[in-house]
Amino acid sequence: MVALGFDNPVFSQFVCYSILLILETIGIALLVIRIRVKRKVFSFPEDCSQFIVGKHHLKPTADDALIKRLRRCHLNNLENIVPFVTIGLFYVLTEPDPWTAALCFRSFLVTRVVHNIALIQALPQPTRTFSYLAGVIILCFMSLSVFQRGKM
Amino acid sequence: MVALGFDNPVFSQFVCYSILLILETIGIALLVIRIRVKRKVFSFPEDCSQFIVGKHHLKPTADDALIKRLRRCHLNNLENIVPFVTIGLFYVLTEPDPWTAALCFRSFLVTRVVHNIALIQALPQPTRTFSYLAGVIILCFMSLSVFQRGKM
Amino acid sequence: MVALGFDNPVFSQFVCYSILLILETIGIALLVIRIRVKRKVFSFPEDCSQFIVGKHHLKPTADDALIKRLRRCHLNNLENIVPFVTIGLFYVLTEPDPWTAALCFRSFLVTRVVHNIALIQALPQPTRTFSYLAGVIILCFMSLSVFQRGKM
Repeated sequence: MVALGFDNPVFSQFVCYSILLILETIGIALLVIRIRVKRKVFSFPEDCSQFIVGKHHLKPTADDALIKRLRRCHLNNLENIVPFVTIGLFYVLTEPDPWTAALCFRSFLVTRVVHNIALIQALPQPTRTFSYLAGVIILCFMSLSVFQRGKM
Repeated sequence: MVALGFDNPVFSQFVCYSILLILETIGIALLVIRIRVKRKVFSFPEDCSQFIVGKHHLKPTADDALIKRLRRCHLNNLENIVPFVTIGLFYVLTEPDPWTAALCFRSFLVTRVVHNIALIQALPQPTRTFSYLAGVIILCFMSLSVFQRGKM
Repeated sequence: MVALGFDNPVFSQFVCYSILLILETIGIALLVIRIRVKRKVFSFPEDCSQFIVGKHHLKPTADDALIKRLRRCHLNNLENIVPFVTIGLFYVLTEPDPWTAALCFRSFLVTRVVHNIALIQALPQPTRTFSYLAGVIILCFMSLSVFQRGKM
């Protein structure tokens, strides 16, 4: 059996969870576009030219609170997807226990969803920090499993 | 034939387009450095210490409009390269039709180049938004092809 | 021998250096959290609610100089890890000379560590710029090796 092939159930799961994380991130980027149009909050003059307020063209403004949150959320997802996809791919190659691997992938997705909801909805802390740290612990666990196999 | 090897023409193409996208992004980062030096716009005091204006050292200033655009462009490329490289790699493993795959990779590169030019040159909207959305549609198409093979 | 397996010493090394780069980046993210709590500098109201200064709740403030540096450092690492992991993986598949490959991976890690120290400690320029450019040169060298094998 090829480790990096859809016949390997651990790889197949890893692929699905990676894509879900990426699609979630793209979803937030699309949400930012939608809210920018709805609230008419744009960073660049060319984005404003199609909107006329009173007799004048709209002007670029600083991001409002919600857009700031969504952009931070998007960036934070990106920061977490890069380690997950990279370490996850190496982790799959260590032929881990399928049950443990599935637990890692699922929990990581849960920590990211909780983190995003906590950030966007401004849930009371430490929900956001704890969900972030839980994700980091999962990444460290997978890194350790990989380090046991790798040689420098 | 190994799916992830240069003998697989789909993988070989994917590699080339991925690297082109990455080199383009690095090119924009280098352009930012060049324009910072040319316009003497720096964020940090240590960057200013070699430049003397009148009798005083230069001071850090907020990014000007062009540098803001270039940095946004760089970040936007990064946001799009991560999904492209990840989903693209999984997509190659689904053994797609070589013609469809080549179309996906080429179109994605085109959407990114158009997006970057539209952002840097401040082309009238909706060029930028449409080229961004075209890229997202290609990513979603590749994700769907992968999901049909993967199992959670 | 499988190219993407821990039996391939070049791949094994690549995995270790990639994970070290990622863990360094996560370390900087954790440092940001620690310094935010220590200096009570937060971006969002919900982060402030547990801190009371005098009789009032703390208010969100703009990032201070050190946090700005650390966040820039974190983002810059992310910008460099994505090309390194992607191009590095393709480079491993070209079956490079193990000695050259090890030199690339090690030097890249060194350039990133020097860059991060120069940015966080505000070392005199051009340390930071030169370490950044050295990293870019290594990425370009690996890209060239890959391009010689790939076909568009």
